[in-house]
Amino acid sequence: MIGLTNYAGVMESLMNSAEEKQPSSPLTNSWAKKQESSKSQKPNGVGGFVLVHAGAGYHSESKAKEYKHVCKRACQRAVDQLKAGALAVEAVAAALVELEDSPFTNAGMGSNLNLSGEIECDASIMDGKSLHFGAVGALSGIRNPVMVANRLLSEAQKGKLSAGRIPPCFLVGRGAHDWAVSHGIPPCPSDKMATKFSLSAYKRNKRKMELAEKMDTGHNQTKKRRQSSENGNGSGCLDTVGAVVVDLEGNVAAAVSSGGLAMKHPGRVGQAAHYGCGCWAENACNMNSYSTAVSTSGCGEHLIRTMLARECSAAMQSEDAHQALLEAMQNKFISSPILASEDRVLGGVIVLRCCRCVEAQPSQNFQGILVEFLWSHTTESMCVGYMSAQDSKAKTHISRLPPGTVPGQSLAIEGGVCRLTGVVE
Amino acid sequence: MIGLTNYAGVMESLMNSAEEKQPSSPLTNSWAKKQESSKSQKPNGVGGFVLVHAGAGYHSESKAKEYKHVCKRACQRAVDQLKAGALAVEAVAAALVELEDSPFTNAGMGSNLNLSGEIECDASIMDGKSLHFGAVGALSGIRNPVMVANRLLSEAQKGKLSAGRIPPCFLVGRGAHDWAVSHGIPPCPSDKMATKFSLSAYKRNKRKMELAEKMDTGHNQTKKRRQSSENGNGSGCLDTVGAVVVDLEGNVAAAVSSGGLAMKHPGRVGQAAHYGCGCWAENACNMNSYSTAVSTSGCGEHLIRTMLARECSAAMQSEDAHQALLEAMQNKFISSPILASEDRVLGGVIVLRCCRCVEAQPSQNFQGILVEFLWSHTTESMCVGYMSAQDSKAKTHISRLPPGTVPGQSLAIEGGVCRLTGVVE
Repeated sequence: MIGLTNYAGVMESLMNSAEEKQPSSPLTNSWAKKQESSKSQKPNGVGGFVLVHAGAGYHSESKAKEYKHVCKRACQRAVDQLKAGALAVEAVAAALVELEDSPFTNAGMGSNLNLSGEIECDASIMDGKSLHFGAVGALSGIRNPVMVANRLLSEAQKGKLSAGRIPPCFLVGRGAHDWAVSHGIPPCPSDKMATKFSLSAYKRNKRKMELAEKMDTGHNQTKKRRQSSENGNGSGCLDTVGAVVVDLEGNVAAAVSSGGLAMKHPGRVGQAAHYGCGCWAENACNMNSYSTAVSTSGCGEHLIRTMLARECSAAMQSEDAHQALLEAMQNKFISSPILASEDRVLGGVIVLRCCRCVEAQPSQNFQGILVEFLWSHTTESMCVGYMSAQDSKAKTHISRLPPGTVPGQSLAIEGGVCRLTGVVE
Repeated sequence: MIGLTNYAGVMESLMNSAEEKQPSSPLTNSWAKKQESSKSQKPNGVGGFVLVHAGAGYHSESKAKEYKHVCKRACQRAVDQLKAGALAVEAVAAALVELEDSPFTNAGMGSNLNLSGEIECDASIMDGKSLHFGAVGALSGIRNPVMVANRLLSEAQKGKLSAGRIPPCFLVGRGAHDWAVSHGIPPCPSDKMATKFSLSAYKRNKRKMELAEKMDTGHNQTKKRRQSSENGNGSGCLDTVGAVVVDLEGNVAAAVSSGGLAMKHPGRVGQAAHYGCGCWAENACNMNSYSTAVSTSGCGEHLIRTMLARECSAAMQSEDAHQALLEAMQNKFISSPILASEDRVLGGVIVLRCCRCVEAQPSQNFQGILVEFLWSHTTESMCVGYMSAQDSKAKTHISRLPPGTVPGQSLAIEGGVCRLTGVVE
């Protein structure tokens, strides 16, 4: 059974407020050729749009306010950048820094602790304009992992290193830490990144684990392992964070950051550091009518093996964004043959796609960038926020699976439309 | 310009010896339904097929004999496993161990040293039957990184860990090392993995780098960085190793292992550890008529960003295997918009695809598994070997770009066909 909420306009001042499914209606999609001609131009105005998430997992009502608040602040940070004329990739990094800095999210500050009681973070960023990508995995002792990923991206854009060496796009562990510090990113003692909450969750999880292992003793280990999956952290603290942005030049960018699964083995790298799995951004080109940006959250192993970010991005070239995302989540994730042996497939995505409308028509008096944004998840809930730089009013929302549906087997999908004017012509 | 060699049968005793292009002609492709019914059956005979590579890069004539010899031994190892009734995934791991153990390849023993003079290896393996995947990145002090990747894969197949924790599919650095040791894989002192050759190459590269950086001083650094790309290790020591296997049950598997780029930054992870980039294996199913397995080699960053293994696998569902691979290498790699800013796009793939032929027809008196195998590269050369378990004669070959063509802009493509009989009915 699939749980669906209507795909309705939820950003009234900026979009169609249709209650029914709202297919995209680009008046004239001349994106690709416009991209060519706009390279050296600056926007007529300032603006853009940002959509963030504070994780697909379970967001208790008691902390809903905090989750919403951090999403709002992250939107504001991105919009501040956009208003200052920053490109999408800079704005998306700024949003991530805010999300990482919150002690309530499982990224940067307050990340889940691993089996050894240490924090090891994954993060990645992709620039839809250059298609460059930067990622860090199992990174300790850096407050904002996304800043390292972003720096890897920008260093790679400069071309080869001395003696023709190809710059890295993905660094892990101690090497990633040392690279960051040598590039001016200050180290942060690991104990300053743990919070009261993350430490007490670690102790609780450790006890739970020891108990589970005690119970296993003398029994059939394999059988027990399967049974114990019912009690796991499967639908709990998966609150990886992410954001997608489009700027007024029409460039898109996406980023993701995560402390990883609680009690993960040291050195474990999840989807947030994995190309095509944690985030994806791709400007429109000759082959693609739409620019797309995606960020994912949930169980890293499920998201890696299904390459969910890239699958969703590819699907979004279909005409109907809502239907495309619904089918991608159903066919490429929940029912993917790759995850056939999993009892619950846990994840969520935020998606943004846009195209340029250059001719005003009587039915839709609009010239600019039409932005469609969506989120979908199979987890109990997902917290999102979104904001247009022209409107500057952040909206936040905790999306929940419809009552009676089963996490990992059902999905929720929602979204809206936003129109950006004053774009580069 | 694209350099092409004819796609000709090169394994005379086992295949059509047509000099012309040889499209696949499955008599009746009933793979998917046969897969369903064969789960509990054992093959009537023993057999299977293996294709290995000792890297896409530059293979000097002086060392050609060694490269061919290690490919031959790797084929033999896989075939020994297949004859003993092993599944494809076990056979492919056995081939990789042999390739890693050779001091001539850039994997395991004799790997390239990084900037700090240390060996850090990447490896991954994928099982086309279960679609499980295991990978390690930046792993030091383990002689056979592929064994750790394989163990991650097999542990993940057992289901969840205690307290419902999801087992990792990708471990890096120190954490990967400790996991390996705790799972019975013996550590190996790093200095025992370096060879005279890898140490002298390190010293040579270090001098070259220092000289290049000295020359940069006082000049425009960015400009110099671009110019120096002409002198780099671009087409040199990229000899990552890999293998693809099909067993007599028709299961496919793929694996890859690499010491990474010479003088890479510590912590840098290349395509060999990256899902979808280093290797891919997928048994035929309802959606896919062919089982496919791919392993890649070359410049890790190029292979990551284009997800070459998965792209080639997806392309191989087209009717004409040769044309499909040619187009994938041209459109998804050399001319990929993702690598538009790269002057030379360096990589190579080995590909295997197969389907079941269940009805003998007058024109092709054959019942069994039709295996098509190909290799293609944009590097100066690529060393491959292949062997059928039924024939037990390994063939080896150093494929080179056609004279006058430019590495990184042109490609070579070759392959053959092998028929396996005595398969599970």
